[in-house]
Amino acid sequence: MLFKNIHFILIRPQLGENIGAAARSLKNFNFENLRLVSPRDSWPNKSAIYTAVDAKDIVHKSKVFSNNDQAVSDLDYVFATTSRSRSVNKKIIDLNEAVKIIKRQNILHKKIGIFFGPEASGLSNDDLINANYLVNIPTSNKFKSLNLSHAVTIFAFELFIASKKFEPIVKNLYRSDDAKKKEVNAFLYFLISRLDKVRFLKPEEKKEQMIRSVKNIFHRSSLSTQEIRTLSGVISSLIKYKE
Amino acid sequence: MLFKNIHFILIRPQLGENIGAAARSLKNFNFENLRLVSPRDSWPNKSAIYTAVDAKDIVHKSKVFSNNDQAVSDLDYVFATTSRSRSVNKKIIDLNEAVKIIKRQNILHKKIGIFFGPEASGLSNDDLINANYLVNIPTSNKFKSLNLSHAVTIFAFELFIASKKFEPIVKNLYRSDDAKKKEVNAFLYFLISRLDKVRFLKPEEKKEQMIRSVKNIFHRSSLSTQEIRTLSGVISSLIKYKE
Repeated sequence: MLFKNIHFILIRPQLGENIGAAARSLKNFNFENLRLVSPRDSWPNKSAIYTAVDAKDIVHKSKVFSNNDQAVSDLDYVFATTSRSRSVNKKIIDLNEAVKIIKRQNILHKKIGIFFGPEASGLSNDDLINANYLVNIPTSNKFKSLNLSHAVTIFAFELFIASKKFEPIVKNLYRSDDAKKKEVNAFLYFLISRLDKVRFLKPEEKKEQMIRSVKNIFHRSSLSTQEIRTLSGVISSLIKYKE
Repeated sequence: MLFKNIHFILIRPQLGENIGAAARSLKNFNFENLRLVSPRDSWPNKSAIYTAVDAKDIVHKSKVFSNNDQAVSDLDYVFATTSRSRSVNKKIIDLNEAVKIIKRQNILHKKIGIFFGPEASGLSNDDLINANYLVNIPTSNKFKSLNLSHAVTIFAFELFIASKKFEPIVKNLYRSDDAKKKEVNAFLYFLISRLDKVRFLKPEEKKEQMIRSVKNIFHRSSLSTQEIRTLSGVISSLIKYKE
């Protein structure tokens, strides 16, 4: 069985070899969707194709985006892998828990993205904005830095193994459809532009951090489409009241 | 906690990059022992050291051997990874079961080796001779060929995760010490030379296959030192009787 709704997303990958090796692992474990955000080297990339061996098709059909928002716009949930502890107020779960959540979402046909950061630095705080969950892959405390394709390999292997175990899935019938990331981001664009207008985002030097905090709150909470509509209505009516 | 008694053994590795990447994973998951049997390129190897990043120490202290028997002589158990089904009469277990067995042996301070085959072809039937168990890492049926460093990464990660779970270990008190691989091989050398002498290994064109079958039987059965002594006595007395 192919994991058609799970997208491995490499953020600003530097080495073609790692992209190719990641593609190979995806094929080893029945995945087919690779997305790249701003790969450092020109694309398509010879080393990536060479390293992919029999997974060249995955490299060829990988999708390239120029920023994270575009790369996640059609997704329901985003998981961001990170080895460092973060000052971001989002839940950090370990790989084992992430796999259980993804397995459940996959059975419900949700579209899922998994972020992997660039080789040298990992994901930045800005990269974490679209994430619902941060995921820690357990390692030795003495040397936490995983090779990019190794992190992809471990994640893909664990999902593959988990997919073979039977577990009953209970759907929450009282919940409307989850919002796509592009709905959340459209709402956030609307909210932030209004906050800017009412001079909430002051002083200027703190603006960026304030925007990030606001975005993090709403991406984290896995809102439904209905809830996004409600929130948009709330903001609109607040603004009208103030005018 | 370091896994001091577990040795990752790369058989005829071709690419320095894979050796270095394997070393990096070992360090990520608290291993430190890397052995190489007849690496294709000259050793020490620049690409291996470069790719190891912060695990250069593991590359530098890796041990190089010219054949498999030498590489396992001080070990108690050998596990050989293989993705193909084999015509060899040894038990094939999956990674999950191998990890349980290794964990138990590790707690009992047994010295363990894990074989990984060359990139292009994997382990040959001759490479499997020293193995007590063959281990299959589950993959898609459509594309089974794992990158060498990915296979090492998955194995190391699973052992690392298993080591954190508590499970009571029961020791078999009625068993004397397991034989080292060099004791098994010394016995086999003795046995095969005698078999050759009594013209058991005929016809000539089947000799190699017969030797391999005999060796496989005794490596598979995880004999104790006492049992090796008993068997040597059995063979000696049989020969004396025939003379």
